[in-house]
Amino acid sequence: MKKEEDPATGMLSIPGFPVVLVTVARNIMTAAAFSFYSFKPPCVMVGIVPKRLTFELISEKREFGISIPRADQLEIVGMCGSISGREADKFTKTGLTPMRGKVIESLLIEECPVSLECEVVHEVDFGGTHRWFIGEIKAAHIDQNYTRDNALMYWAREYRRVGEIIPVEQK
Amino acid sequence: MKKEEDPATGMLSIPGFPVVLVTVARNIMTAAAFSFYSFKPPCVMVGIVPKRLTFELISEKREFGISIPRADQLEIVGMCGSISGREADKFTKTGLTPMRGKVIESLLIEECPVSLECEVVHEVDFGGTHRWFIGEIKAAHIDQNYTRDNALMYWAREYRRVGEIIPVEQK
Repeated sequence: MKKEEDPATGMLSIPGFPVVLVTVARNIMTAAAFSFYSFKPPCVMVGIVPKRLTFELISEKREFGISIPRADQLEIVGMCGSISGREADKFTKTGLTPMRGKVIESLLIEECPVSLECEVVHEVDFGGTHRWFIGEIKAAHIDQNYTRDNALMYWAREYRRVGEIIPVEQK
Repeated sequence: MKKEEDPATGMLSIPGFPVVLVTVARNIMTAAAFSFYSFKPPCVMVGIVPKRLTFELISEKREFGISIPRADQLEIVGMCGSISGREADKFTKTGLTPMRGKVIESLLIEECPVSLECEVVHEVDFGGTHRWFIGEIKAAHIDQNYTRDNALMYWAREYRRVGEIIPVEQK
């Protein structure tokens, strides 16, 4: 039996979104407000609170990197989500190694198994807490041992592992 | 060591997105192109391929329901994702029970533990394979026994369970 709850509680009932590290220039930000946008052209989108340094930097540079961390990198993910790039250089603070991309000038993260280079093609700004940048994936760098099994999800103050694959019967 | 891959392969490396059933009028569609948009006002967004019946119906009705299924409802999720509402009534086909909302006229799904009633407040249409509708959550209905532990994720042809919570050390 379902009970009526307020819309904010409804929002928190969503299972979870993939955790990514958004890089722009030399800054790193943790985000779960990250989504697919389109297969052709291949675009993803990331939602940023306008007061963040990352918002300023993406607005200016028109590009961003997406690095997908592993669950065992949670400590670094937490650090990048709690420190502001206005106060500290997060590469220095976390010990992560900056990696040069092929297309964008913003740095990527060597230690993450996946890095995507994205150029901003559109902005979605209708007010609200977040503004979204749609980025076309221009290049991808993937570790040969990468498996999505070790990825991280986040929502409603909970980090989770990605769960096991459910086999689907072919009928 | 990371190797360069094409952008489409980069897209498929994303861990997964929550699986939802989108209802509008009396139609049901399975979607993983579903995302948070803003906390205030509380908005979510759903990406739809324009040729789908759901696209037509949301464009006309300016509302949609989001019902979150459990992992054990995967068979129904698969059916709603593979049949078109142009060919069959999916409530009849799946045996799901239509549930009346409080705000929207579109039907919700009784058997799903969470149902959100959303009114379309904006559309995101820059071309590409998907168009996105941003919906403000106007009402939420949640089963008292609901836990996000039983939810479903999907990406790159794989359904997964939501994984276990990772405890975070407080420092």
